Amino acid sequence: MAAGQKIHEFVETLTPQLIAWRRDFHKYPESGWTEFRTASLAARKLMQLGFTVVMGRDAVVAEDRMGLPPAEELARHELRAVSQGGDEELIKMMHGGFTAFWADMVCGSGQGPTIAIRFDMDANDCSESTAAEHLPTAAGFVSENPVVMHACAHDGHTAIGLGVAEVIAKFKDDLNGTVRLMFQPAEEGVRGAYPMVTKGVTKGVDVVLGIHIGVSAKTLSSLVCGISGFLATTKMDVDFTGKSAHAGSHPHEGKNALMAACAAATNLHGIARHGGGDTRITVGKLIAGQGRNVVPPNARLVMETRGETTEINEFMESEALRIIKGAAEMWGCTYAVTKMGAAASAPSDPEVAAMLAETGREMGCYDTIVLDETLAGSDDFTYMLEAVQKAGGKGTYALLGSPLKAPHHNDRFDFEETVLSRGVELVSRMIWKVLG
Amino acid sequence: MAAGQKIHEFVETLTPQLIAWRRDFHKYPESGWTEFRTASLAARKLMQLGFTVVMGRDAVVAEDRMGLPPAEELARHELRAVSQGGDEELIKMMHGGFTAFWADMVCGSGQGPTIAIRFDMDANDCSESTAAEHLPTAAGFVSENPVVMHACAHDGHTAIGLGVAEVIAKFKDDLNGTVRLMFQPAEEGVRGAYPMVTKGVTKGVDVVLGIHIGVSAKTLSSLVCGISGFLATTKMDVDFTGKSAHAGSHPHEGKNALMAACAAATNLHGIARHGGGDTRITVGKLIAGQGRNVVPPNARLVMETRGETTEINEFMESEALRIIKGAAEMWGCTYAVTKMGAAASAPSDPEVAAMLAETGREMGCYDTIVLDETLAGSDDFTYMLEAVQKAGGKGTYALLGSPLKAPHHNDRFDFEETVLSRGVELVSRMIWKVLG
Amino acid sequence: MAAGQKIHEFVETLTPQLIAWRRDFHKYPESGWTEFRTASLAARKLMQLGFTVVMGRDAVVAEDRMGLPPAEELARHELRAVSQGGDEELIKMMHGGFTAFWADMVCGSGQGPTIAIRFDMDANDCSESTAAEHLPTAAGFVSENPVVMHACAHDGHTAIGLGVAEVIAKFKDDLNGTVRLMFQPAEEGVRGAYPMVTKGVTKGVDVVLGIHIGVSAKTLSSLVCGISGFLATTKMDVDFTGKSAHAGSHPHEGKNALMAACAAATNLHGIARHGGGDTRITVGKLIAGQGRNVVPPNARLVMETRGETTEINEFMESEALRIIKGAAEMWGCTYAVTKMGAAASAPSDPEVAAMLAETGREMGCYDTIVLDETLAGSDDFTYMLEAVQKAGGKGTYALLGSPLKAPHHNDRFDFEETVLSRGVELVSRMIWKVLG
Amino acid sequence: MAAGQKIHEFVETLTPQLIAWRRDFHKYPESGWTEFRTASLAARKLMQLGFTVVMGRDAVVAEDRMGLPPAEELARHELRAVSQGGDEELIKMMHGGFTAFWADMVCGSGQGPTIAIRFDMDANDCSESTAAEHLPTAAGFVSENPVVMHACAHDGHTAIGLGVAEVIAKFKDDLNGTVRLMFQPAEEGVRGAYPMVTKGVTKGVDVVLGIHIGVSAKTLSSLVCGISGFLATTKMDVDFTGKSAHAGSHPHEGKNALMAACAAATNLHGIARHGGGDTRITVGKLIAGQGRNVVPPNARLVMETRGETTEINEFMESEALRIIKGAAEMWGCTYAVTKMGAAASAPSDPEVAAMLAETGREMGCYDTIVLDETLAGSDDFTYMLEAVQKAGGKGTYALLGSPLKAPHHNDRFDFEETVLSRGVELVSRMIWKVLG
Repeated sequence: MAAGQKIHEFVETLTPQLIAWRRDFHKYPESGWTEFRTASLAARKLMQLGFTVVMGRDAVVAEDRMGLPPAEELARHELRAVSQGGDEELIKMMHGGFTAFWADMVCGSGQGPTIAIRFDMDANDCSESTAAEHLPTAAGFVSENPVVMHACAHDGHTAIGLGVAEVIAKFKDDLNGTVRLMFQPAEEGVRGAYPMVTKGVTKGVDVVLGIHIGVSAKTLSSLVCGISGFLATTKMDVDFTGKSAHAGSHPHEGKNALMAACAAATNLHGIARHGGGDTRITVGKLIAGQGRNVVPPNARLVMETRGETTEINEFMESEALRIIKGAAEMWGCTYAVTKMGAAASAPSDPEVAAMLAETGREMGCYDTIVLDETLAGSDDFTYMLEAVQKAGGKGTYALLGSPLKAPHHNDRFDFEETVLSRGVELVSRMIWKVLG
Repeated sequence: MAAGQKIHEFVETLTPQLIAWRRDFHKYPESGWTEFRTASLAARKLMQLGFTVVMGRDAVVAEDRMGLPPAEELARHELRAVSQGGDEELIKMMHGGFTAFWADMVCGSGQGPTIAIRFDMDANDCSESTAAEHLPTAAGFVSENPVVMHACAHDGHTAIGLGVAEVIAKFKDDLNGTVRLMFQPAEEGVRGAYPMVTKGVTKGVDVVLGIHIGVSAKTLSSLVCGISGFLATTKMDVDFTGKSAHAGSHPHEGKNALMAACAAATNLHGIARHGGGDTRITVGKLIAGQGRNVVPPNARLVMETRGETTEINEFMESEALRIIKGAAEMWGCTYAVTKMGAAASAPSDPEVAAMLAETGREMGCYDTIVLDETLAGSDDFTYMLEAVQKAGGKGTYALLGSPLKAPHHNDRFDFEETVLSRGVELVSRMIWKVLG
Repeated sequence: MAAGQKIHEFVETLTPQLIAWRRDFHKYPESGWTEFRTASLAARKLMQLGFTVVMGRDAVVAEDRMGLPPAEELARHELRAVSQGGDEELIKMMHGGFTAFWADMVCGSGQGPTIAIRFDMDANDCSESTAAEHLPTAAGFVSENPVVMHACAHDGHTAIGLGVAEVIAKFKDDLNGTVRLMFQPAEEGVRGAYPMVTKGVTKGVDVVLGIHIGVSAKTLSSLVCGISGFLATTKMDVDFTGKSAHAGSHPHEGKNALMAACAAATNLHGIARHGGGDTRITVGKLIAGQGRNVVPPNARLVMETRGETTEINEFMESEALRIIKGAAEMWGCTYAVTKMGAAASAPSDPEVAAMLAETGREMGCYDTIVLDETLAGSDDFTYMLEAVQKAGGKGTYALLGSPLKAPHHNDRFDFEETVLSRGVELVSRMIWKVLG
Repeated sequence: MAAGQKIHEFVETLTPQLIAWRRDFHKYPESGWTEFRTASLAARKLMQLGFTVVMGRDAVVAEDRMGLPPAEELARHELRAVSQGGDEELIKMMHGGFTAFWADMVCGSGQGPTIAIRFDMDANDCSESTAAEHLPTAAGFVSENPVVMHACAHDGHTAIGLGVAEVIAKFKDDLNGTVRLMFQPAEEGVRGAYPMVTKGVTKGVDVVLGIHIGVSAKTLSSLVCGISGFLATTKMDVDFTGKSAHAGSHPHEGKNALMAACAAATNLHGIARHGGGDTRITVGKLIAGQGRNVVPPNARLVMETRGETTEINEFMESEALRIIKGAAEMWGCTYAVTKMGAAASAPSDPEVAAMLAETGREMGCYDTIVLDETLAGSDDFTYMLEAVQKAGGKGTYALLGSPLKAPHHNDRFDFEETVLSRGVELVSRMIWKVLG
């Protein structure tokens, strides 16, 4: 195929640039909602390539952002981003944690369909290994920022996004329709997709793609074209507030928040199984109390629910909220629930997965192409996919194979950079398949 | 003392009658709120002796009666009472469980103080032993009514009440003031005193006495003149109602009342200790569910709280009610709390106890006279005592010693009938001390 | 097909007999392990037809029988069975609840495969409707036994078993191999299959069939040829024993079994979800305590676990046992777990289901033939199927369609008797397919 | 009284020294088991005054020390003590947290009785106020050590101890018998008295005194001579260890320590009330889990039990240990209980309290002398008192009145230094009463 060959050859020339981008992002990792440097540089690049960029308060519903850090922390990271070479003008537009953006290129007559691809930008909250055998250390692009590290390949995803933008910019006249590149913050903790969706990022989208390096695709020649089994999930923090009292002399004057939290945790795990499909409930952390001898006036639960479908997760969430309310009531406490993240359960569409598989076969570099894989994790790309599906469109989530030096989220995580150019080529060819 | 001697001699002549009354009541025992025969015969006797009797709807606040049997059961026992020789005319006035009454005799000028004495009339829900060595069986006055038995000596208390009435009627001109004899239903389960108090039985009472045969006074020559330590108590039945569902196929459609009940029971027992005094919390019974394979839609707790003071018991009760509400909320259930009984914590007044002790000493038949004993049980006479104390009066609760054949509430319980005449004399002499 | 036609014509002649058998069994229903009349009459019939019958202590491992009624109850029902026309000689061999049996016919050379078919015989613990519009009442075969009723069609299954036996006996020379008819007691509560399997009922079986009238097949022309989704299950009764104490005066001397049961129930429902598949946990009943004012010394849980596979159910069961043990420990109680029933999760084999579907098509009377249906219930036929599968054989579970007057286990449950002859023909033709 | 006057006059001359000592200890506060500077300076002083000092491993049973800080922390504070002017030679003998000591002076013939007085030396874990109006700040003796502060007056107690030593040393020939001054570490958390008692500090003691500045005695002219109501107590930390697992994909592989901790906390609070007296149970802190999405493998409870008597507290402790064990069992976790502190419930002896009251009256400076006060707190001086009482001796615990600037344990706590000389005089006169 002429177009495929043309793309392949151009992407070959981009390879050094892709690696440079990825290493630059890797060196200055930024965690969820603080991707000021990463996002400002990427957005600037897309503007330069002729994309129309939607950003700042236009790119998210402000109050739908979950797990937003405190203002003071956002401000601190904003300053850091400037000091580390971020685009100061665009960072200003992102002030207060508005780091999401999307970029559109209307191609040809613009009459064709719209394809959207999601690239996530945030890093993980862990310290990167400084072992000599860890490539980023050896090659000088180890994280400069304390307790933040790209340990889930989002640096690579962002670089692939920029590469795809280069390809589109160069050959856009071959296409007919619209290409939307969606740069998402705060995928870790599944916090960033939902406010982009409620702001309209998926409006008018016919085909949507999400990509991820690695996961279960662990060789360069493997490609997973669709995912089912992502559980819908809701992440919540729950704070119970009671009243302290001297446990020796006036225990009856206290309102015991620890007991409320224990009643909640115990009964939450007892929520009925669902006849319609799989569920999960986890109170992952419980922190309560002030002293051995004080009726505990405070307790926090760090928890999540999951469900095989969005509806089943909604059942879990509403059961959980009622149990939390009842537990607070029991012990005379007040309580507050803060939603910290959420993802839907949308499974990939087999047609789009099949189209991606065909694209992969055409590239000739994949010997293991899986149409559908069941994963038990969560990625809030599912909110984008679900929104597109509900509006009549289709989409898929793909895994780009690469050997990994260590598991995701590990301090020695690293992938092979060859996956970057393959990812750019795969996504670009897929765009051609849809808009060509 | 001339009066004392006169009383003594007259009571001697009453002895066969006292025994006859006691055996008659024993043979036809009636449980709480169904004392139609006992109460109608006693009330008739008091009328014949010239007492003014307050009865029926005038003697209790109807809706304050706790643990009332169903209407059908009341009606059945009413019929039984008639068939067993009850006073049909008076039974009609007691229709619907209005078996409480009190009887006043204004003595002399009526200018003196008012003394009130409580006699309880109800029997226990147990089957009486038919062993040959059990006196009621041997002497032919064993219970004729199935699963009801006078196993707590209330038959004796009622007989003593009638004996005291005889003494008052005979010598009333020696006295100056008012004698009130209070015949209480439903002392078992502490259900009957409260609605008499709210109706006004203690209004204007200066001195109030409660008596009980046995308990810790276990010889004929022992007398306990006052009690402290009675815990205030509230008896409640709690019903949780949820929704059943097939536990295999549709567990998520159920509302699990069993889980609500377990959450309630577990957390109830965790109510904070009280810095101000002793407390108790007991869920004595829990009955929940319909089948192994059905999400349980129903659960009942049979429970009680106790407190060293009425206020501390109120703390326990309000904590309990909040926990029950929260437990229902947790599991999406509704609930109903039915108050089944209650007693206050009023301790005896030492002055009245001392006066009773003096009376006992004067009688010459007691060698062991205890001024104050600590008992952990409950008797809702405390409501009467508390009401009198709050209005500025005083009172005490006394134990009339007798050997017992078996513990209270046991199917072989029996006391020595000698205690009857001693009880009549003691109470009568005490009345003389107050009104003489 | 000549054989099919021959079977069809012979079964037509059996129809009045099938209905007569069914109505007779219906009139004298017997619950699990008390099927003395039903089993003795069926076994005698099979003997008369030339089958070799294995029964009594040879047909089950005695101690593997779950949920066995008390000896006294067994004895009472044994007498009833005799009085209602059971076969006295065979009932003697079933003394003590040994009502299982199987019957073998070696056909032709006997060199061919072995096919086994399960027929369950027990009735349900409910009172049958005596409404005029209820056919068994109208036609005079309503249950004569109080609180027992064939409300799950096992009367029909047993009649079909006898019908199949007639067919085999008549045409056995056409076949080559062994036909085993397995008459199972106590399917309700999934109690009877396991001890037959441990005794060897499935040894040497190549193909095994289970049948059930109705369930999700609700027209005479519908046939379901295989089932998946049966959850493995374990039924348990748990008794906690503590120590009673007066809750007012000596609460610290009690060992609170009610609290142990609540801790168990609450935490049982919190057993972790399983990553490998569906689970269920239900405490369907909790009965605890003696009186409002007594630390409860006794508590019973009536419960069950379920799992998508036998292994997952084993996980649930072992978690449950550990939690129960810990709950007893917590409250200083002893405990006893009685296994009341169990079933495996074996799914039907598609090849056998396909063969049955072909058989159904050949009969010409089915217009709706379903190869595989997912059911969430349990039937301990799965133990037989699992045992055959583990030994290299195959099998399926089929639903014979019939309109139902009311749901299974309802007091007006009734099916159309046409299903009896269709069932006999279907099973017989299937035997011909395997051994013909 | 001549002796009284002599003591009074000598103590007057000591006043500036008492204040200087108190301020020096206040400036260099040390928390439990790290009182290297305080103890070494005090011990050296006592040696210089001619007392025989028992210290280091001779003064405690090493393994009975509760709530000992880690070795590294002890070592760090040992170095700090040296750098802040502690007695290096004696600090070496206290290496590893052996900061307890006692000092004996045999007076006269030594034939008389033995009186022992306890002085506690440790400071609290809080940061001292640096507000200008806080006297220690204004006068330049505010704490130099971060997050440690004398906020419970133990600096004053130690200074009084040294003052008493001066008096004894000066006038010892007036006396006949033995004076033992016991300098206790780690009173906060009730950790230090028990290992001194097990080592023998109370052996041969006839009369024992404990003193405390402030508490409920809030004017300089008030003196409380005896305490009842101290609850016996046990302080425990409980660690549950389970197994982490991914809560989304493999929840069934985890062992949930958070659920074990919640089961424990919930059921601990449900331990039965005790018919014999007051109890308390408090889980003051619960810290569990690692991440929202991880089955929690760790949980810690920080808890305590209390009881009106040592026996009732032992009931609470043994119930608690069984519940903790059962909770761990329930959730397949291991657990470890670390005893962090303990105190007995010994009430003061009225005879000794009366003697102290008389002493106070003789001093003429007290207008409010209370013989017995009920306090709900704990002080492990009770272990010393209990040991003396069990051996036939007697003792009391006294409160030396002083206005307080803020409650005990508050960052602005301060007392009036006049109490120091009054304390020295009171204790000295009491010694004269016993040995004089």
